[in-house]
Amino acid sequence: MYGDDSPIAAFATNPGSGALTVIRCSGKGSIDLLSSVFSAERLKSAAGNTVVHGWIISAGERIDETLVSVFRAPKSYTGEDSLDICCHGGSSAGKAVLSVLKKAGFRDALPGEFTFRAFMNGKFDLTKCESVMELVCAKTDTGRRHAVSRLMGSLENEINGIKQILVQVLAGAEIYLDYSEDEISADAEEAAGKLPSREQAEEAFIRLKKLSGSWQIERIYQEGITLVIAGPPNAGKSSLFNLFLKEDRSIVTEIPGTTRDWIEAFTSIEGIPVRLIDTAGLRNADDSIEKIGIERSRMLLYEADIVLFLFDGALGITKDDIAECETLIKNKRTVFLWNKSDISPPVHPFPLAGISPISISVKTGVGMDELYSAITLILPKENESIDAAIGTERQKRLVDEACLTLGEALKLTDEEEPLDLITPLIRQAVNSLGEITGEVSTADILDEMFSKFCVGK
Amino acid sequence: MYGDDSPIAAFATNPGSGALTVIRCSGKGSIDLLSSVFSAERLKSAAGNTVVHGWIISAGERIDETLVSVFRAPKSYTGEDSLDICCHGGSSAGKAVLSVLKKAGFRDALPGEFTFRAFMNGKFDLTKCESVMELVCAKTDTGRRHAVSRLMGSLENEINGIKQILVQVLAGAEIYLDYSEDEISADAEEAAGKLPSREQAEEAFIRLKKLSGSWQIERIYQEGITLVIAGPPNAGKSSLFNLFLKEDRSIVTEIPGTTRDWIEAFTSIEGIPVRLIDTAGLRNADDSIEKIGIERSRMLLYEADIVLFLFDGALGITKDDIAECETLIKNKRTVFLWNKSDISPPVHPFPLAGISPISISVKTGVGMDELYSAITLILPKENESIDAAIGTERQKRLVDEACLTLGEALKLTDEEEPLDLITPLIRQAVNSLGEITGEVSTADILDEMFSKFCVGK
Repeated sequence: MYGDDSPIAAFATNPGSGALTVIRCSGKGSIDLLSSVFSAERLKSAAGNTVVHGWIISAGERIDETLVSVFRAPKSYTGEDSLDICCHGGSSAGKAVLSVLKKAGFRDALPGEFTFRAFMNGKFDLTKCESVMELVCAKTDTGRRHAVSRLMGSLENEINGIKQILVQVLAGAEIYLDYSEDEISADAEEAAGKLPSREQAEEAFIRLKKLSGSWQIERIYQEGITLVIAGPPNAGKSSLFNLFLKEDRSIVTEIPGTTRDWIEAFTSIEGIPVRLIDTAGLRNADDSIEKIGIERSRMLLYEADIVLFLFDGALGITKDDIAECETLIKNKRTVFLWNKSDISPPVHPFPLAGISPISISVKTGVGMDELYSAITLILPKENESIDAAIGTERQKRLVDEACLTLGEALKLTDEEEPLDLITPLIRQAVNSLGEITGEVSTADILDEMFSKFCVGK
Repeated sequence: MYGDDSPIAAFATNPGSGALTVIRCSGKGSIDLLSSVFSAERLKSAAGNTVVHGWIISAGERIDETLVSVFRAPKSYTGEDSLDICCHGGSSAGKAVLSVLKKAGFRDALPGEFTFRAFMNGKFDLTKCESVMELVCAKTDTGRRHAVSRLMGSLENEINGIKQILVQVLAGAEIYLDYSEDEISADAEEAAGKLPSREQAEEAFIRLKKLSGSWQIERIYQEGITLVIAGPPNAGKSSLFNLFLKEDRSIVTEIPGTTRDWIEAFTSIEGIPVRLIDTAGLRNADDSIEKIGIERSRMLLYEADIVLFLFDGALGITKDDIAECETLIKNKRTVFLWNKSDISPPVHPFPLAGISPISISVKTGVGMDELYSAITLILPKENESIDAAIGTERQKRLVDEACLTLGEALKLTDEEEPLDLITPLIRQAVNSLGEITGEVSTADILDEMFSKFCVGK
């Protein structure tokens, strides 16, 4: 599928109601091809990194007035001749222009095909390619920052650094292998340069372990956590839900529960994307439909990363509350809240063992700072000391593979097994690392990887 | 609000999941201002119409890797120094960049402010400004084509042409007014050049009438029509609905009815945007909730521009059908369809007077061509002979105002009323026309107009 350099085109912006739509074109002959449907003759000879104004023309009809940015190989994103066509926004102009381009000979770009070509033309290693998609998908500013770090090469450099060590280890070992064991003299040892170094291999191993561990936090910054608001009916759950969204001012969308039993919205806390869920009030209901809703709320509590449980300060602690809290305190990272503290402050000492609720008033906003602090304590901490971190499941899998084989090699070394059992394992680890950056790759691996990208990237 | 030339910035693309986000900046000093947060020194001195690659920087941190298109006054959309910043797509990168720009001193652009500045700097008249928004909002290719025609000046030229005639009429009349009636000699008449010409004024009037009439069709191309599918339960309404959407391959969105009683989607037929509605089956229901749904379906029938009524071929004509058809045949532009013709063809002659249903099978697709032809016959026809057409309610209102006063002037002329009663009316018509192009305008009018634009345009 991927792999030719024919002229391709695709929308690079989200279609819809923006002021502009950008169509990206790339490939051999793409500038001439676009010139064949463009009003301004000078496009053909335009220098790289210049912008040409003109109309897209089809059969003499002016389709849309555009600004075309011209990039000439190899100074472009893909490394090929390429063009960004800036059309009018909305659903019609861009569509009409793309249709003219396709008639002229451009074909639809495959998902990630522009970035694929950038990789093939040596513009990016695979970790940078992946960071482009991470950047586009980043839900929070922290997510963006981590992706930018990988785009700047932090992961590529770390992987290459570790690989370099292992290659040195291998080089040493292989000279060693050229001699039979009893032939090795002090001279030969010297001639072989460094002997297979356990210390070096161990350093590589430790750095790989650290990388592997980085994914645990990194994944949370990418995928986020689920925060569920629970409690009896009328405790103020929906008001708290709205307060979260207003305070953060970063709502992405609000999706009503498929069952109308719960509502979710997306926000972020401390740079971590948060899926915020407002549940149906928990109580022993008689109504059979309400019962189903409450059952679903309980299921959500089990899936949650964090639960906020609201007591209704106006009502005090009910029998239902006591039953719910018993489960929550055992199973979950729960923050207990005493709402409506403006009307009725919580009892001291609190009658339920092990629970010391934060006193809040969703109405006045009192206590929200304490609530945020309590949540922040539960959230995983960003490990600032890590310079390079893993950004994708693929990278994690390959780092773990390298770790596993290298660990095995270290074990065999300690057991004083012969080098010709150990070196293939190290070579395998080097291969896994090469696959991360794309130095080692097959068409299958690349197709699989780039097909997950979005079109236009 | 509008009217200064300070540096402004706004998203120019639809935020969301695209590969790219474009942020547009314009205003005095905007290139220097962007340079203060940009990694590449050469941006500051970059020539107009060139593209500079670099990072947006904030407090030493790299925020996003971008391509910046530089435009230098007056060769830009706004006529000012301006920049299009091409960031990574998604929700984070663009947001982070915009926030850096605002810290650097850019302010949020008001809706339509870029186009407003283009107008103030003489780049566009108001009809062209409006055509930009029409283009962005165009739902179909025909809508795009008409907007492009106005962007190329078709309406501006026609308005100016008509105005020119009226100005000539006025010039003649005013020289006339310089003389008292009994002073006018043959010499004076000659000196005054053309006398106030009824013929010229009438030509202007006819052209204005034609323009005014163009809006009837133009509005339909912009706003579209509503097509409602009705009929008894299980007649195949939803299958037909889906078939329409599949055949047209231009679904914009699908919105479930707020009441779950009907579904709507957008498509287009013959270049006209169509709001397609699938209703609840019409029958005399016992269930009270279903009754409400059916009542709502009947309301939709009254609002529809076209109704497709399906008979269930497998069931034949029911008593309910007969009742529905009686109303439909009287009130509506209805196309009657006999579905499931593959199982059971319609009876000949058809037992309901005045109805001759088209035989279709939604299952096999047979009869769909006939159905499209029948719909096309009902749709308003695009008047290809009109070169200039009105694109907005505002233009329509002003053209009608000019028509009205000019008509009154013609009437007074025919009644041989004195010129000093007639010329103010003509002057008023000229003013209305000047307001269409923006030659005559006030801050209020402009604020009102541009505030309806989208941000970033």
